[in-house]
Amino acid sequence: MPRLAIIGLGLIGGSLGLALKAANLESLEIVGHDREWGVGGRAKRLGAIDQDARLPEDAVEGASIVVIATPVSQVKQTMKDIASSLSEGAVVTDTASTKRDVMRWAKEHLPDNVNFVGGHPIAGKETSGLDAAEATLFQGRPWAVIPSVRASEAAVTAVENLVRLAGAVPVIIDAEEHDSYLAAVSHLPLLAATALFSLAAESPAWPDLAALAGPGFRDTTRLGSTNPDLGHDISLTNRENILHWLDRYIDELRRYRALVAQGGALDELYKQLAKVQTARDSFLEKPPERPRSAEEVASVSAGQAMLQFMVGEWAVRRAKQVEDIAERRVATNEPPRKDVS
Amino acid sequence: MPRLAIIGLGLIGGSLGLALKAANLESLEIVGHDREWGVGGRAKRLGAIDQDARLPEDAVEGASIVVIATPVSQVKQTMKDIASSLSEGAVVTDTASTKRDVMRWAKEHLPDNVNFVGGHPIAGKETSGLDAAEATLFQGRPWAVIPSVRASEAAVTAVENLVRLAGAVPVIIDAEEHDSYLAAVSHLPLLAATALFSLAAESPAWPDLAALAGPGFRDTTRLGSTNPDLGHDISLTNRENILHWLDRYIDELRRYRALVAQGGALDELYKQLAKVQTARDSFLEKPPERPRSAEEVASVSAGQAMLQFMVGEWAVRRAKQVEDIAERRVATNEPPRKDVS
Repeated sequence: MPRLAIIGLGLIGGSLGLALKAANLESLEIVGHDREWGVGGRAKRLGAIDQDARLPEDAVEGASIVVIATPVSQVKQTMKDIASSLSEGAVVTDTASTKRDVMRWAKEHLPDNVNFVGGHPIAGKETSGLDAAEATLFQGRPWAVIPSVRASEAAVTAVENLVRLAGAVPVIIDAEEHDSYLAAVSHLPLLAATALFSLAAESPAWPDLAALAGPGFRDTTRLGSTNPDLGHDISLTNRENILHWLDRYIDELRRYRALVAQGGALDELYKQLAKVQTARDSFLEKPPERPRSAEEVASVSAGQAMLQFMVGEWAVRRAKQVEDIAERRVATNEPPRKDVS
Repeated sequence: MPRLAIIGLGLIGGSLGLALKAANLESLEIVGHDREWGVGGRAKRLGAIDQDARLPEDAVEGASIVVIATPVSQVKQTMKDIASSLSEGAVVTDTASTKRDVMRWAKEHLPDNVNFVGGHPIAGKETSGLDAAEATLFQGRPWAVIPSVRASEAAVTAVENLVRLAGAVPVIIDAEEHDSYLAAVSHLPLLAATALFSLAAESPAWPDLAALAGPGFRDTTRLGSTNPDLGHDISLTNRENILHWLDRYIDELRRYRALVAQGGALDELYKQLAKVQTARDSFLEKPPERPRSAEEVASVSAGQAMLQFMVGEWAVRRAKQVEDIAERRVATNEPPRKDVS
């Protein structure tokens, strides 16, 4: 049976398992592993996985698709752990928030006969862990897909279909662009929200500020509740891009400061606020078209296509096993040939 | 019948009417006015008000409590319009986002025989107007209450009860503190969110950024969809406080920048992120106690207390009318006395 492995069963890995199970694909076996004791068993009871593997290398055994859903700080070690157990032709993907380092690690640590395609579902929430997992986490959310140089076209398509099957929208992009853009729309917002919260919370007036804080303050600072490990990992693996966007953000705030400060510039401030309101409303209604955005594919066919790919890989592997058996049979009937050179 | 007037039937005025109606107080008549044609009639059909008055001065006629729920830019003119029609002893309050100017206008334009108590429900949303109004808008939200020097204790209590009746939590505070604190938890977040959005949306990479923007970006920039009139009015009436907090925010962002930039400081960054996560979680669970926070009062008794206050005012006014009638009767039976001085 086609097998998919998920290493790391936290919010992302757990939600992916639940989403794939909810897609009701017959004949897909999901094997999971989490390094924290007890999480795999709980994921199985929740119906996120079919089999709980004791070790990452056990989980990937015979899997056509492997999803590394650990924190970015564990991705490299996981690649090393599973490298020698991966099936030939397997598709390996991940879910880490930054991609440049991940692509390099894959090149260094995964065997040449597997296809690595980076992935990043942009669908976190401020709670983490398996208990926060839900089948609808990725619904309608972007999921960046980053093909490695060595990955086959079929492997990229398989990951795109996996993404669609989870309910998300695949966004094909290269690693450098991904990290720069994510710094703008994810890592900078995280730091902006955190700084906004700490500015208020570390002020002597905090009890009064807290009493007067409404839903606007709560939403704008929501990312301040992000798991600090994530913020730390992001800053470690995407430092230059984050610094670049932080500097640009400080400049942008200075521009608004000038508009507020000058009495005569208040009309300009009004125009700027109105411009942003309009732009944000149209963004919510319909995001601007990307020049190279992929064609829309229905999720039902995505499931079928992914399974076909997996069955294809499985068939190839089965054929190879048969060949090996045949070869061994031949070997036992013939005496081993001596090296003639 | 005790009468309450609401001038301005947008998101706030409309929601207040709906919330008070939902509280099912018998014998409370709500008279509304909106300067935009047709809004008053629609508010009546929605059940937010009982009577639609053509002019603000008509709406406040005989009202024990008057709520000015117009944008801050119209508050002064509204005070001038209603000044001569207010009943003696009436309680006048407002809902504007900044308070220093409003308190000054009340002192200058309202008669000495009414009680002005400033108010500010901290419960907006990014949509505005009557159509966005809802009875639950204020539920559990803070509502700043700012007593003027001349307001009676009974008037302050009446406004606190009105606030509780709307489902909100009254926060008694003075105007200067209010404006400074609101700059921190409301006006700064508005500008921070707007700048974060415009930085991304005005970048040449916007189509890619938009494709990769997840729920974190949406929430952090939500206030960018605020009605630009509100942002403009706030900046006009609270400039100094906003500039102060904007400068402090830029400094705070620089502090985070330093933590990201220095490799060795990443542990410090982790500690800071963890500190904010913990602080925000405990803020959401239970905000810190204000030293002078008022005692909690059940909303049922709040309704009764407000009505008693209003009936009291009404009884006093009725008694005064009777007195006037009696005086006039006496006057018709006696020849007018000449001034003897």
